[in-house]
Amino acid sequence: METKNIGLRGIEVADTRISNIDGEKGKLIYRGFDILDLTKNSTFEETAYLLLYDSLPTKQQLDEFNGKLIDARYIPKQMQKNMRNWRKDADPMDMLQAFVSALAGYYDEEFSNKDASYDKAINLIAKVPTIVASWHRIRNGLEPVEPDSSLSHAANFLYMMFGEKPDSEVEKIFDVCLILHADHTFNASTFTARQVASTRAHMYSAASAAIGALSGELHGGANTEVMKMLLEIAEVDKVEGWIKEKMSIGDRIMGMGHAVYKTYDPRAQVLKELSRKLAKKTKDPWFDITEKVEITTISEMKSQKDRDIYPNVDLYSASLYYMLKIPMDLNTPIFAISRVVGWAAHIIEEKFAEAAPKPALYRPKATYVGKYCGPQGCEYQTLDLRK
Amino acid sequence: METKNIGLRGIEVADTRISNIDGEKGKLIYRGFDILDLTKNSTFEETAYLLLYDSLPTKQQLDEFNGKLIDARYIPKQMQKNMRNWRKDADPMDMLQAFVSALAGYYDEEFSNKDASYDKAINLIAKVPTIVASWHRIRNGLEPVEPDSSLSHAANFLYMMFGEKPDSEVEKIFDVCLILHADHTFNASTFTARQVASTRAHMYSAASAAIGALSGELHGGANTEVMKMLLEIAEVDKVEGWIKEKMSIGDRIMGMGHAVYKTYDPRAQVLKELSRKLAKKTKDPWFDITEKVEITTISEMKSQKDRDIYPNVDLYSASLYYMLKIPMDLNTPIFAISRVVGWAAHIIEEKFAEAAPKPALYRPKATYVGKYCGPQGCEYQTLDLRK
Repeated sequence: METKNIGLRGIEVADTRISNIDGEKGKLIYRGFDILDLTKNSTFEETAYLLLYDSLPTKQQLDEFNGKLIDARYIPKQMQKNMRNWRKDADPMDMLQAFVSALAGYYDEEFSNKDASYDKAINLIAKVPTIVASWHRIRNGLEPVEPDSSLSHAANFLYMMFGEKPDSEVEKIFDVCLILHADHTFNASTFTARQVASTRAHMYSAASAAIGALSGELHGGANTEVMKMLLEIAEVDKVEGWIKEKMSIGDRIMGMGHAVYKTYDPRAQVLKELSRKLAKKTKDPWFDITEKVEITTISEMKSQKDRDIYPNVDLYSASLYYMLKIPMDLNTPIFAISRVVGWAAHIIEEKFAEAAPKPALYRPKATYVGKYCGPQGCEYQTLDLRK
Repeated sequence: METKNIGLRGIEVADTRISNIDGEKGKLIYRGFDILDLTKNSTFEETAYLLLYDSLPTKQQLDEFNGKLIDARYIPKQMQKNMRNWRKDADPMDMLQAFVSALAGYYDEEFSNKDASYDKAINLIAKVPTIVASWHRIRNGLEPVEPDSSLSHAANFLYMMFGEKPDSEVEKIFDVCLILHADHTFNASTFTARQVASTRAHMYSAASAAIGALSGELHGGANTEVMKMLLEIAEVDKVEGWIKEKMSIGDRIMGMGHAVYKTYDPRAQVLKELSRKLAKKTKDPWFDITEKVEITTISEMKSQKDRDIYPNVDLYSASLYYMLKIPMDLNTPIFAISRVVGWAAHIIEEKFAEAAPKPALYRPKATYVGKYCGPQGCEYQTLDLRK
């Protein structure tokens, strides 16, 4: 029995105006703009505005949007109290999924109204970093740090994590990371968000579901796996032997290769330079080790299989976050801090799209391959007759 | 621009052994057994076993399964404390989504292990009713009622809701409702659960996402809409005029018609008889009103459009739950109490299927129809130049 359309690869499900990937040329476009231009010129806040509203903001629009984001950074104190009741070793993605869903217990903007959806989106984008940082503090027995309204979105998150304001170089590096991860068309978590929204569920509900999808190791968990590999290798001189051994037994090298990009992932290109820069500053070995992983995997793939392979977005982000002193298990929540912008934009598009036809609730077909005893069904035996 | 595969209708995405719908013949099959046989002969617990394990249990297997379900009915006291902090008027589906997700903060069975997945499934099936009933009590200023281990799954839920044990007739009616709603192949919430599980996220995460999808008014919310209609009509004599007026302006009649069944939905058939029976007992007018809605809609559809139309699962469940004194906004959570069995079975199938090929993470294709300024992307204007 051959199942069709495994993983829905190549099956078109909807129109979108939000982003586009050119896998051949290695380009990622947000609302018409090349991601490389945005990382050079824009900020996370401006990019979030672009993704949500389909155009770059004027000065006034950006100020207003920033002001709303800053005002919305607080989460109910009660949520922080509730966090204290969780297992300290709980997966932070589980925590995030539950608390994003719980936002609906505290806020009740009307989602059937498009304007209110934007308010919900802003609330979500502003609060996810506070939820993550609060959990980081609480599980370590520390008091949560209140948001600082003088700081940018990127700087404020690092401040809430560590209680110290980052310098401008670190702030900029983290800001670029947030820009790079903000959207990537219909990946598994974004499609989950759209699917939940297609039943007309509200934004917190759809975003919480997306966090669930992102928590899976096949989706958001990959950069944590990269960092585990780097820690295992630990020294530049050991990279070559380690990679060759793994590849000789057919193991995949984490952080290398991508299903869509047939050339260098543009995000990896930017992250590589940021990682190089940060390692110079922190004098960490992780950039050198990572670069050696890249070089060795490429040359081994060439010599073993005569095939090209390139780093994906996870290869250099892993060591970058590590050098920013972010605990490994927060890598995926940080992915969510950024990707929540894309989710919100897709949720709004799914529910309110005008240019694109509004898709119906997603209900695919399954092929029944189970028990069959004829058109009347199998005979029901009473309990005492069963063996 | 024409988008293909809207709502994924007719697109095969996976094999399944769990359930099958024959829309032409009006049959719903769980693991080979006709739903009508199961409602006549089985119980919710036995049907849950069948859906999870692919065969009817022996006496010993059923006793063991029942015992595990009974033991798992308790939820952490802390969860009930946390519920007290929610807005009393919060949507119970939001509450359920958040607290199912939060189960991961209290329990940590290993989901990459198939046996542990069954434990998680049992935990989930047992605890969802307790979460719903606790919330019902707490938002009404009442103390939650502890589960009673002498009661069946159906009776225990009604007991935890109202603090009184239901009589055996009411228990049986509710038990049949739970059997009828337990699975329905790849509907929107089940597909959401499978999608989240396809990234290798765990069961609580996937089930929480499914609850999000079910909360949408296009999916789980329909029987609440039916009840609103019945309350608006209020009297048998007013049905005909009300329905004719709505249909004359092209309005859809809630609870009538189904995308898949081309004949009588077998679930509606059973629910109709249960509703008739319960109304006799409670002397409520709701069965008569509902039946009149059915008859009038069928005859109007015939005379206006020469087309057949049949009741769907929501038409008679609405008044049935109402007569059981279940508040209208708990209709969808009660749907979840039953459907969580199907979700759990599908999540396990998605992750561990042997007979059916294991699908990859779902990542469909989108068609980019947004801004395009040539291969280099649109020109980024600095903020001061934008108007």
